[in-house]
Amino acid sequence: MKKSVENIVLEIKDKSELMIDLAYSSLLYDNKTIAKEVYDLENLIDALYQNLQKQTLEQVENKKLSINDALAVLRLAEAGEKIADAALEISDVELRDVELHPILKMSIRESDQVFTRVQVESQSILCNKTLGELKLGSETGMYIRAMRHGDRWLYGPDKNTKIDSDDILFAKGPEDGEKHLINLASGKTSKI
Amino acid sequence: MKKSVENIVLEIKDKSELMIDLAYSSLLYDNKTIAKEVYDLENLIDALYQNLQKQTLEQVENKKLSINDALAVLRLAEAGEKIADAALEISDVELRDVELHPILKMSIRESDQVFTRVQVESQSILCNKTLGELKLGSETGMYIRAMRHGDRWLYGPDKNTKIDSDDILFAKGPEDGEKHLINLASGKTSKI
Repeated sequence: MKKSVENIVLEIKDKSELMIDLAYSSLLYDNKTIAKEVYDLENLIDALYQNLQKQTLEQVENKKLSINDALAVLRLAEAGEKIADAALEISDVELRDVELHPILKMSIRESDQVFTRVQVESQSILCNKTLGELKLGSETGMYIRAMRHGDRWLYGPDKNTKIDSDDILFAKGPEDGEKHLINLASGKTSKI
Repeated sequence: MKKSVENIVLEIKDKSELMIDLAYSSLLYDNKTIAKEVYDLENLIDALYQNLQKQTLEQVENKKLSINDALAVLRLAEAGEKIADAALEISDVELRDVELHPILKMSIRESDQVFTRVQVESQSILCNKTLGELKLGSETGMYIRAMRHGDRWLYGPDKNTKIDSDDILFAKGPEDGEKHLINLASGKTSKI
């Protein structure tokens, strides 16, 4: 299996799941910028999928990939494509310019893992640290899915992403992790 | 909006996302029991979806739900249905009796959030505690998606679920959360 095939499967998987979280965030925070990002990511996934199909067929032709392995690759990528489509449907609700019924909004927010949006204050311990240094995922359970830095948006930030004062974080995680993140961002607590 | 409508939307959302995690876990751990559970959950989602459509139409007829709210409800449920279908496709790869290519398996395991499977040893601090008491989600970032207790399986356990010695936990979360969970389950550390 050529390295790029598995890389593309993984990218489709991770991006499609990011799209779902972004789509729900766009609805919950009535945020069209995030909803439009879901559209851009769908285009990216389409391109990745086409590239993957071509590479998979080439590797089958060159006997570098067995039929069974190729089928699994195509099947997984197809599933990711479906998930991306579902994310698009969700963000469409936001883009149709209809405010979600408050009861429905509340209900979605309180799913298995809650969605939250927090602003980082200047006195917060989070300022000037990278996500890699902070390890918010393992320390609070909260998983940053998008952030706004001034006029710039970052979707699916990685461990090298630095948090600055006034950044707005869109995160997902367990209910008690949310309180912890809010306290860290406000500067109320400095214990990560 | 009648309470049950939003409850059903939420259940479809949470169950469909659980299905995705279970489907990948079934592939990674070559586990047909988990893959079959994805099939059972798909049947449940179909039933929920039909129930939701009926209730939504009835509430529109009785003027208890606006057309716009009803459209949003149907759209969100449809997206959940699509995600469930995608999960089914993933678990089909497992059920087709084809072992996933090791490189592809490794790649999926190491996505944005890793999947892990740990056995709880008798000396572990986790024994005889509920998930609600342990708060593993906010303390380690690891989110238990399924567990095996003797011959019994539990999918999407809740805060009342108790962990016992010898239980096998299937979890998802950040890479450094995995190490923490492994150390807790083995009894190597008792600091949650």
